[in-house]
Amino acid sequence: MGSGAGTPFSWPIRVYWEDTDGGGVVYHARYLHFFERARTEWLRHLGFAQSELQAAHHLVFTVYRMALDFIRPARLDDELEATVACEAVGRASLRLAQVLRRSGEPLARATVHAACVTAADFKPRRIPAEILLALQRND
Amino acid sequence: MGSGAGTPFSWPIRVYWEDTDGGGVVYHARYLHFFERARTEWLRHLGFAQSELQAAHHLVFTVYRMALDFIRPARLDDELEATVACEAVGRASLRLAQVLRRSGEPLARATVHAACVTAADFKPRRIPAEILLALQRND
Amino acid sequence: MGSGAGTPFSWPIRVYWEDTDGGGVVYHARYLHFFERARTEWLRHLGFAQSELQAAHHLVFTVYRMALDFIRPARLDDELEATVACEAVGRASLRLAQVLRRSGEPLARATVHAACVTAADFKPRRIPAEILLALQRND
Amino acid sequence: MGSGAGTPFSWPIRVYWEDTDGGGVVYHARYLHFFERARTEWLRHLGFAQSELQAAHHLVFTVYRMALDFIRPARLDDELEATVACEAVGRASLRLAQVLRRSGEPLARATVHAACVTAADFKPRRIPAEILLALQRND
Repeated sequence: MGSGAGTPFSWPIRVYWEDTDGGGVVYHARYLHFFERARTEWLRHLGFAQSELQAAHHLVFTVYRMALDFIRPARLDDELEATVACEAVGRASLRLAQVLRRSGEPLARATVHAACVTAADFKPRRIPAEILLALQRND
Repeated sequence: MGSGAGTPFSWPIRVYWEDTDGGGVVYHARYLHFFERARTEWLRHLGFAQSELQAAHHLVFTVYRMALDFIRPARLDDELEATVACEAVGRASLRLAQVLRRSGEPLARATVHAACVTAADFKPRRIPAEILLALQRND
Repeated sequence: MGSGAGTPFSWPIRVYWEDTDGGGVVYHARYLHFFERARTEWLRHLGFAQSELQAAHHLVFTVYRMALDFIRPARLDDELEATVACEAVGRASLRLAQVLRRSGEPLARATVHAACVTAADFKPRRIPAEILLALQRND
Repeated sequence: MGSGAGTPFSWPIRVYWEDTDGGGVVYHARYLHFFERARTEWLRHLGFAQSELQAAHHLVFTVYRMALDFIRPARLDDELEATVACEAVGRASLRLAQVLRRSGEPLARATVHAACVTAADFKPRRIPAEILLALQRND
């Protein structure tokens, strides 16, 4: 049970040189990588690898909208936690709330809208039933 | 004159392998890179290099909020245009509207809130007068 | 004619925040991006877009060996030039010499071995005749 | 004890979307990120965080030469292991042998030459005695 009942799924992230920029902090776009890793691990935790979803179902999840708050900068060597809470599930889309924290303190927040689309031409498709079921059970 | 009177500043972006992901399209976080390059070139066009701002004034601009719409995927070899329009200027912050287009068609839109902060510890500071003046003249 | 007779093909690169790391210089892996952009533009200059090569011929070029010298660090806002000189052409592979310079001063050098492979499973294939011809004419 | 006696230090790497490119495999420059993470964790394992090295000693390690073999492509969701074996230690530089493996099978190999330099202007400096000692004890 990962994201129901007030305990959202959480994934550890370590900050490396690759994540930092010449300002001495994590480059803003890297937070999207961190959030994406957490979403990928959350789906894997629910039983779904996206490489299989792409190969077997010819489907991918794609982000179509995102609202981001960058609250405090993360720095080299920081140990962070990225959480994923599923806020809404539609037939072909999801809304997730994500937070990146360091020692419990929020550094960044994101609301992420993702759609299920065909791998070949990015047309909207229903989320496969077994994923939908896992998402609903997980609420 | 780049961004006044309905003609926002525009910067060309070519899509390379580095920008794409295994879904065959541009990785969503890369759009933030594209938008950032356009902001950097817009500031340069106004007369300000951020390396000088950091070295001489000990200031950096940092993004603290962002709203993103990913409308259509960009692909390898695409020639894109990223625009920057300054919507609001405060004493220590800016709000910019940015659009990424391919042959005039919007692929992504962003509203970007950036703050002027100290390079050492990311504390808010007034935007230097000469930059403020250039931004206001450019409206 | 870009790369024959002592004048190798050259492509301008601007350094952005995304390229720098917390050490205040360009992150070492980014030089591979810069070299790859120059190779892509060199192929385009010869008449070949890799997206077409992948879509129409189901082929991609893949780097299988690389030797790199990082001589001097590049920094934010630097204007660089990346060159490509084709040193050897085989039936299914290429050897390229690349240099990254700032104001004529070399910052990094690379010897790049690239192979032509099938897009589906990365098996070696002959370089298409028209590309081979263009490469040889370009020597 | 991480890297002596035939058992080099090893660090797990998971492949995410961010690491892949439109060819469906890991983008070649990303292997440098993977190797760098392993080096960072190896130094941490020996007792040294690079953020402290930079802040307290004003030193950074910088890669000045690298030889890379890309043997087989890594793909989305792959679980990899990156190893670090210290081959030679000088007063101001190191030579490391690194291998990236999937289920024991080598995907990439690197010989990495790193130098200890001043954080401010990248001038060579002796490796701090306690790091040198830890490296030698670790042989």
